[in-house]
Amino acid sequence: MRMYDIIHKKRDGFPLTDEEISFVVQGCTDGSIPDYQLSALMMAIYFQGLDPHETAVLTDRMAHSGDLVDLSGIQGFKADKHSTGGVGDKTTMVVAPIVAACGVPVAKMSGRGLGHTGGTVDKLESIPGFCVELSPEEFIRTVNTVGACVVGQSGDLAPADKKLYALRDVTATVESIPLIAASIMSKKIAAGADGIVLDVKVGSGAFMKTLEDAVRLAETMVQIGEAVGRHTVALITNMDAPLGNAVGNTLEVREAVETLEGHGPSELTTICRELAANMLYLAGKGDIIHCNKLAREAILTGAALAKFKEMVAAQGGDVSAIEDTQKLPAASDFRRVKAPMDGYITHIDAEKCGLAAAMLGAGRQAKGDAIDYTAGIYFKMNLGEQVDGGFEFARLYTSGDPVRFDEAERLFLEAVTISPEPLPESPKLILGRVSAEGTELY
Amino acid sequence: MRMYDIIHKKRDGFPLTDEEISFVVQGCTDGSIPDYQLSALMMAIYFQGLDPHETAVLTDRMAHSGDLVDLSGIQGFKADKHSTGGVGDKTTMVVAPIVAACGVPVAKMSGRGLGHTGGTVDKLESIPGFCVELSPEEFIRTVNTVGACVVGQSGDLAPADKKLYALRDVTATVESIPLIAASIMSKKIAAGADGIVLDVKVGSGAFMKTLEDAVRLAETMVQIGEAVGRHTVALITNMDAPLGNAVGNTLEVREAVETLEGHGPSELTTICRELAANMLYLAGKGDIIHCNKLAREAILTGAALAKFKEMVAAQGGDVSAIEDTQKLPAASDFRRVKAPMDGYITHIDAEKCGLAAAMLGAGRQAKGDAIDYTAGIYFKMNLGEQVDGGFEFARLYTSGDPVRFDEAERLFLEAVTISPEPLPESPKLILGRVSAEGTELY
Repeated sequence: MRMYDIIHKKRDGFPLTDEEISFVVQGCTDGSIPDYQLSALMMAIYFQGLDPHETAVLTDRMAHSGDLVDLSGIQGFKADKHSTGGVGDKTTMVVAPIVAACGVPVAKMSGRGLGHTGGTVDKLESIPGFCVELSPEEFIRTVNTVGACVVGQSGDLAPADKKLYALRDVTATVESIPLIAASIMSKKIAAGADGIVLDVKVGSGAFMKTLEDAVRLAETMVQIGEAVGRHTVALITNMDAPLGNAVGNTLEVREAVETLEGHGPSELTTICRELAANMLYLAGKGDIIHCNKLAREAILTGAALAKFKEMVAAQGGDVSAIEDTQKLPAASDFRRVKAPMDGYITHIDAEKCGLAAAMLGAGRQAKGDAIDYTAGIYFKMNLGEQVDGGFEFARLYTSGDPVRFDEAERLFLEAVTISPEPLPESPKLILGRVSAEGTELY
Repeated sequence: MRMYDIIHKKRDGFPLTDEEISFVVQGCTDGSIPDYQLSALMMAIYFQGLDPHETAVLTDRMAHSGDLVDLSGIQGFKADKHSTGGVGDKTTMVVAPIVAACGVPVAKMSGRGLGHTGGTVDKLESIPGFCVELSPEEFIRTVNTVGACVVGQSGDLAPADKKLYALRDVTATVESIPLIAASIMSKKIAAGADGIVLDVKVGSGAFMKTLEDAVRLAETMVQIGEAVGRHTVALITNMDAPLGNAVGNTLEVREAVETLEGHGPSELTTICRELAANMLYLAGKGDIIHCNKLAREAILTGAALAKFKEMVAAQGGDVSAIEDTQKLPAASDFRRVKAPMDGYITHIDAEKCGLAAAMLGAGRQAKGDAIDYTAGIYFKMNLGEQVDGGFEFARLYTSGDPVRFDEAERLFLEAVTISPEPLPESPKLILGRVSAEGTELY
């Protein structure tokens, strides 16, 4: 088999065989196929696409290109969730305890933030003492005893995906729906869960700019999951603004705790409940209406919050900082951002917002950079709300050099659109749901 | 400027600026752009194309990426010719003397053969003593005294093209008309001639399989030439069979001499005359009908043959082997190929024919391989002619191990189609002509 022939075939629009896809993934993993041939193939796929079978086979081979997480030591159906990148997305900290409180184990590996997006692992580490680096045995034991555990990625999961993604990132072939789907799903499959709930963001702040593309991506990922025997549901959610009012690590932990306490921002609460309900649904806890009720009750009864504290304690975190979030590390300095005019917040550019937070110290420019956990942004008024010119509507935080405030405020004000007229209607939060049964748009 | 943005832009179908194209060619030449980005861009160009301006700029930058041959020491208008690869193509040996005999200097660099195609340089070297490695000064001096000189490529002409072509060759991006056009023209421009006549082959044995593609390639190359100030004409010629009756080095020299003597195969004679006439036309020797008459007279009067002998003598070759081609080195062994049935030769696969000749020793598998100059194939009957089953219609030659005959004969018989019915009409030889004035199809 020759890589040349595989590139040629795909270039001319023909589907690749299972053996050809295996050859590519194998050669990518072991380095026997040079990068220049891989990147040419990625560009040919960008133009010619992959059919559902090719996409499923590519995903499966990439998932099996490295370590596979073995969750067989955990009793019952293991559910996982994944968001396609976001700013202010603290859903894992809310969803995992809800699901665990309802009796479905959550054994989750999460990532760190880079650029304008935050990472769950960084957020949890902002809780004093919280440890995300557990051995596989400790990970399994914690899930079995507590019901939920969130750790950083260990081992070498889907190295073929890692290599291909790095190559696509520098050759302008990231924006291919089958390749994005295969990349996300290969890591989820390698991470070992039985069922996967996906949160596909759509909007100006998201990777998918249009509903049409988001639906295609969601459908492709659900098809892959079902093809490889992992039940998968995808929600399509609006990302025209950051999720919730807080962006930045301890600020987001506090907001997650408020949400578990039952008084978080309504949109964040809704998304967390829907994600949790779908994980419960996949685990066979009943129909989606019933599962939604279970998730709501887990918050109302305090069971979810209790589960979160249990998880924090089990992973070495300071539970008193959850019981009283004033005890979380706080920024040494803040700046009030005043509305430049009277009006309504009609748009918040999530990416710019994330960059402003990173500038304050909340994120990394490069892998391995240190993070200021206390840095970030808090919205007092959010999308759709009325602001008064000259009055504070947001606050910036940092423990770093206060000179950072100037540049961050400039960028932040660029991110926020204030208009004299209110939005014609409040933007829809959950735009659709894709499952093995089909696609529903709301 | 970032290569990523350039790939992205072309991927999305936008034209590149002159500066962006310069950046790519520069980075390709100095190695600062990695191969995986170059190959991704080539695949994006395969799908999105290049407009005439982009193609001309790419060609110009590639032409200037290395050495430029300086022909300013030669008086008058310098004409060059180029064929897009062929089997049995000995036109340079005929055309150069005709043009020189008509008073237009020909300072030509030619290549060596590889795979199924032969190279003019190898053919000339099969004349005992003939030297193709002259210093630039000797080259210029020979053209000025004799009027024609053919040498091997020296210096580092269009290194960016060399690198890109090697990359395209292994990433299935060769078949892009603007890239093919830019590749050919960049080398021709670097080679320094004032005017260029192109022979674009079309047919089963050629790179361009359809007339439509051949016309597009011809038009693209003429546009490039005119855009960079080199007058260019392209003939579109049929390549449904090898050109002439001889394939192999000394066999082709003999056929070229016969053609210069006025009794070569009629199709070879016609193509050589047309190519020469168009070179004379570009040099301002009159309208195309007049130039055709000049070319014909150069053969009839023996002036072209005399010029060829002068050139052979000036380059150290044994002129007696031209005066009597029986003195050219001959193969130690031959095999008669008998027609497997009564019928008409309706097709000859030029590529397979070239491979059969290479198998006999006439060609190279890899650069630097030695060649058996005496090896090759001679057709006693050619395309369109009638053959009798059991009677010889072609002869194979080698000075190597006679065991080569078996495999070569098998491949050669595969290349030839004999049908009970004759061809409905004799195939057209010259299908069209493209010049700055427009495209004429015959």
